[in-house]
Amino acid sequence: MADRPANDAPYRMVRDVEFGEDVVVQSFVNLYGCLVGAGTRIGPFVEIQRDVVVGRRCKIQSHAFICSGVVLGDGVFVGHGVVFVNDKTPRATADGVRLAGEDDWALLPVVVEDGASIGSGAIVLGGVRVGRGALVGAGAVVAADVPPGAVVAGVPARVRPTARAVGAEAGAETR
Amino acid sequence: MADRPANDAPYRMVRDVEFGEDVVVQSFVNLYGCLVGAGTRIGPFVEIQRDVVVGRRCKIQSHAFICSGVVLGDGVFVGHGVVFVNDKTPRATADGVRLAGEDDWALLPVVVEDGASIGSGAIVLGGVRVGRGALVGAGAVVAADVPPGAVVAGVPARVRPTARAVGAEAGAETR
Amino acid sequence: MADRPANDAPYRMVRDVEFGEDVVVQSFVNLYGCLVGAGTRIGPFVEIQRDVVVGRRCKIQSHAFICSGVVLGDGVFVGHGVVFVNDKTPRATADGVRLAGEDDWALLPVVVEDGASIGSGAIVLGGVRVGRGALVGAGAVVAADVPPGAVVAGVPARVRPTARAVGAEAGAETR
Repeated sequence: MADRPANDAPYRMVRDVEFGEDVVVQSFVNLYGCLVGAGTRIGPFVEIQRDVVVGRRCKIQSHAFICSGVVLGDGVFVGHGVVFVNDKTPRATADGVRLAGEDDWALLPVVVEDGASIGSGAIVLGGVRVGRGALVGAGAVVAADVPPGAVVAGVPARVRPTARAVGAEAGAETR
Repeated sequence: MADRPANDAPYRMVRDVEFGEDVVVQSFVNLYGCLVGAGTRIGPFVEIQRDVVVGRRCKIQSHAFICSGVVLGDGVFVGHGVVFVNDKTPRATADGVRLAGEDDWALLPVVVEDGASIGSGAIVLGGVRVGRGALVGAGAVVAADVPPGAVVAGVPARVRPTARAVGAEAGAETR
Repeated sequence: MADRPANDAPYRMVRDVEFGEDVVVQSFVNLYGCLVGAGTRIGPFVEIQRDVVVGRRCKIQSHAFICSGVVLGDGVFVGHGVVFVNDKTPRATADGVRLAGEDDWALLPVVVEDGASIGSGAIVLGGVRVGRGALVGAGAVVAADVPPGAVVAGVPARVRPTARAVGAEAGAETR
């Protein structure tokens, strides 16, 4: 492990991160207190918070937000603008007066197993497990576990009968 | 009021902003012409536009976009990737030729009252009022007023019967 | 054409981009290998990938992501946080071992015709054409062609009977 990515790029905030070999990190990122496995690529405008574990050979696309409590396996795809959530009832203040701190909520963990893909713009709520090789459609809101190999899409995300195409599953006709 | 946040951080664009005491602003932000109340925290990759008023002890999470016309009360939580909208029929050009300017649309104000929380990835359309202490579920599209204390979720957002859990409300099962 | 925008701003990543006259590009952008037409404005936290063509007098708002395969006509509005997709089954690895590369998927093109507007937070899937002057509501997931002049909204996006208001179309009441 190393304390810096394999590449250089301007405008990066990287603190207390452990990187495996050959990790590429683009500009405009905010990474802290996390672990990033070998061969993973991280796009611009990405934040990864403390205690997150990112596996090997993952792709974390631009504008993704990965919060504390998330563990990603190997070969996981996180699309552009994907947001993970670790809190069911977020509040700015703990008691209406002081700012809420780390002790003021129960962190809900999220696990994304090896080879799963989270489509762009999807939201993954706290407490959820996305199974091995599953595919989450673009724009889905995932509020419950996704079985291994399943394709889910929609708001809230539901399993689609076939795995043939995320786009088709997310949609149907515009008519 | 001061013209700079309480903390230092690289890569910030801050112009004509008035800050209350103890405001913390992270890197990679674009703030201009707005007012930020005491004790508020602003995450990375956030834009806050001209004339916005952010109350005291708010949390503005990463990747949020707060447009002109928005007023946030005290203790408001704005989740990651939340987008406010102030225009019902956005167009790039005013007459098909010249770029649309500030005089080419009617700005629709948005008010978020004290203690309300907007879940991550939610979109709040122009002309809407989110009531005191209300909770907007992650990924919701808010197209109408949210009553005080209500929990809303979905696309479009609708009031859910109980306030027990935003996650559950946003979702149901993935089946 | 020029190799730089008309304005100066700090914290920009711009490589191999051709700009028409009077293009304004804000801070915190990642643009590469693309073509941007005269008079267009690009907001902060925007990524535009290789081979993208952006027409003249477009507005590309903050946090938008425009992927390879996208062609925007003249006078196109791309709202805040809009995400384009060019891949139906994204995977991090091509064969479970090596990282997926450019040859490992079929790129699905997207065309947005002159004068069309994509509302904030919308997702436009690969293979789709958005017709001239069409309006995509905020938060919509566009999974099929949008006829010229149509207003679409929802997940998946469907044509709404009147063009009167994107907000109303996206929504209805919060009840």
